[in-house]
Amino acid sequence: MKKILPYLPDRPRKPREYGLTMVMDKGLSLNEAASFMSVGSSYTDYVKLGFGTSLITPGLEKKINIYKKEGVIPYFGGTLFEAFVIRDMFKEFVKFLDKYRIDLVEVSDGSFDIDHDRKLEYIHKLARHRTVISEVGSKKKEVVYSPDQWVEMMKAELDAGSVKVIAEARESGTTGIYNEDGSINNSIIGAISDQVKLENVIWEAPMKSQQAWFIKHFGANVNLGNIAPYEIIPLESLRLGLRGDTFFQFLPDELKQ
Amino acid sequence: MKKILPYLPDRPRKPREYGLTMVMDKGLSLNEAASFMSVGSSYTDYVKLGFGTSLITPGLEKKINIYKKEGVIPYFGGTLFEAFVIRDMFKEFVKFLDKYRIDLVEVSDGSFDIDHDRKLEYIHKLARHRTVISEVGSKKKEVVYSPDQWVEMMKAELDAGSVKVIAEARESGTTGIYNEDGSINNSIIGAISDQVKLENVIWEAPMKSQQAWFIKHFGANVNLGNIAPYEIIPLESLRLGLRGDTFFQFLPDELKQ
Amino acid sequence: MKKILPYLPDRPRKPREYGLTMVMDKGLSLNEAASFMSVGSSYTDYVKLGFGTSLITPGLEKKINIYKKEGVIPYFGGTLFEAFVIRDMFKEFVKFLDKYRIDLVEVSDGSFDIDHDRKLEYIHKLARHRTVISEVGSKKKEVVYSPDQWVEMMKAELDAGSVKVIAEARESGTTGIYNEDGSINNSIIGAISDQVKLENVIWEAPMKSQQAWFIKHFGANVNLGNIAPYEIIPLESLRLGLRGDTFFQFLPDELKQ
Repeated sequence: MKKILPYLPDRPRKPREYGLTMVMDKGLSLNEAASFMSVGSSYTDYVKLGFGTSLITPGLEKKINIYKKEGVIPYFGGTLFEAFVIRDMFKEFVKFLDKYRIDLVEVSDGSFDIDHDRKLEYIHKLARHRTVISEVGSKKKEVVYSPDQWVEMMKAELDAGSVKVIAEARESGTTGIYNEDGSINNSIIGAISDQVKLENVIWEAPMKSQQAWFIKHFGANVNLGNIAPYEIIPLESLRLGLRGDTFFQFLPDELKQ
Repeated sequence: MKKILPYLPDRPRKPREYGLTMVMDKGLSLNEAASFMSVGSSYTDYVKLGFGTSLITPGLEKKINIYKKEGVIPYFGGTLFEAFVIRDMFKEFVKFLDKYRIDLVEVSDGSFDIDHDRKLEYIHKLARHRTVISEVGSKKKEVVYSPDQWVEMMKAELDAGSVKVIAEARESGTTGIYNEDGSINNSIIGAISDQVKLENVIWEAPMKSQQAWFIKHFGANVNLGNIAPYEIIPLESLRLGLRGDTFFQFLPDELKQ
Repeated sequence: MKKILPYLPDRPRKPREYGLTMVMDKGLSLNEAASFMSVGSSYTDYVKLGFGTSLITPGLEKKINIYKKEGVIPYFGGTLFEAFVIRDMFKEFVKFLDKYRIDLVEVSDGSFDIDHDRKLEYIHKLARHRTVISEVGSKKKEVVYSPDQWVEMMKAELDAGSVKVIAEARESGTTGIYNEDGSINNSIIGAISDQVKLENVIWEAPMKSQQAWFIKHFGANVNLGNIAPYEIIPLESLRLGLRGDTFFQFLPDELKQ
């Protein structure tokens, strides 16, 4: 139906490599997940079952199937990986993935500091049989990486087997690639976008101002993550220039003011 | 059931001319829309299908029917009108209204600057066959109108055929009639309320503090807009003095402290 | 399923005396309430039907039954008690409780100032035939109690028959036991936790930062209230150390960094 208006940017069809949206499900009921899919399935690529919620949300297997049936790829939040690994239970983690037939796996070190070589090893090991994405950046305010460190870690993780790297911002959008008030950290994001292929980066961007910034700077098909389920339609509107913030973004010059 | 308590303010029955609540639906699923109606239909007058979401939300026709069946009037957000008009597709916009049997239409210039005479013409033209409401105020921070300009534009638009004028605040409630922190812009709201009939103004008021302010200053039946669906019951509680913020508002003096 | 990971803190089974979570329902539809129960019933002890919403939410009786059937105890927000009492309709309030077969009742003086002896009398009277919880703290910014006053009032109310006292923070979490920006008021919370049995206090804590603070300071089983329905799974994750903020909280020293 959106074809009714010219000059809306093209969005690749699913399954797509670029223009990804990752939604964070932090405890939807089965009904809510189905309801979300009824409006959002064609706009959603990945659903992250946030942090350790998978262990305590009733109906996990059914929820995973709801998402898969709609062509949306579910995966466990990186904190769950970390919770297994800090207990020295990597094998049990892999069994858990098998049990729920989860192909996509996130490797992160946001909550506890894993030596980077060891992180690369986990990526490498998991990438043999699964699709790996890995997250760069700490959830802790006291852990600060330089722009160069962000770039180096991302490159090394992609080399080790990650298909995408995620730039950390938490559910709140106030850490990692953002300042404490949620505003853009230009030096970090600038360095990453200069030196890492944009198709390979998923930017966590829970706030509308952050989403709009990325769409304005990197286009309609920038990969964005940590989107709330009820923000999937508003975000797709932003991507297409159908909301005030990006209204002029994709219009030809002769129509701009 | 509210008749159990005396001194609750009267609310006119639907369809009503005053005491309106306009809710913003920015991408509800059909199930969610039906669920919202099951609690909110008697408290909701208009539902705005926010900005350009109508073009990309699955099941648009069914959703429109869900609202109409419950006596709630759906309409397309002003940004959709603007998206057609900036592409010189006003005729196609009217066809789109016809196709979905939409009677209520919003004329706005929040995203791009339409010459005010041209805006009045659109209002005039549309008002021949439909019910028109028009929005005053820009979504852009750099566009600032004086209190007198707000009043003049509102009066001219009502004269041109709008049945109500909407005072812009965005979904966030941080622009137009509010300051950047969401606090009240007294000079603008004061000028409007002095010079424009209150029954004819719908104040966008997404924040509870804003809703409470309007109810305290203009009464239970002030027209309010950009209410989130899950805030319809809390807002109605505020209107009736059934919440802390307006607890004393409608009590006789002898019961006040 | 959470038994898959060692070192998660124990949570008592329902019905429990400690480790309570009170959720605020401020106008859920029947479908939404059922959906919430399908994920949250085992983690939720009380549901507060917020402020005066009970009088205007359609399907009140059915909703009460949805909660009761799941072993969750519903009650009316304290503002409803106050709305009856300020109108000198205490008897009608009791009839209203009877009509809806509500056993748990909140006595509060957040919106209007009830003489404390009179408040104790209400607690005493209601406690004869029902379970009473009472709330300490004002919703009004200008009413400030000293830490000693908080403690004295809580003790007196427990003595008068309250089984738990609630520490007020509003839905927003910016008053009472918190500062205006939602940060912890250490002197008040310190005094209460020193002098009132922790099992007997329910801390209103709508913000994640507040929930994490209480869990870190008082353990996984601290009683927390004013939780939004869709935050029940994230909160339980926090309680169990399955989220970044409390990731190390319950691990043995040899696993900590």
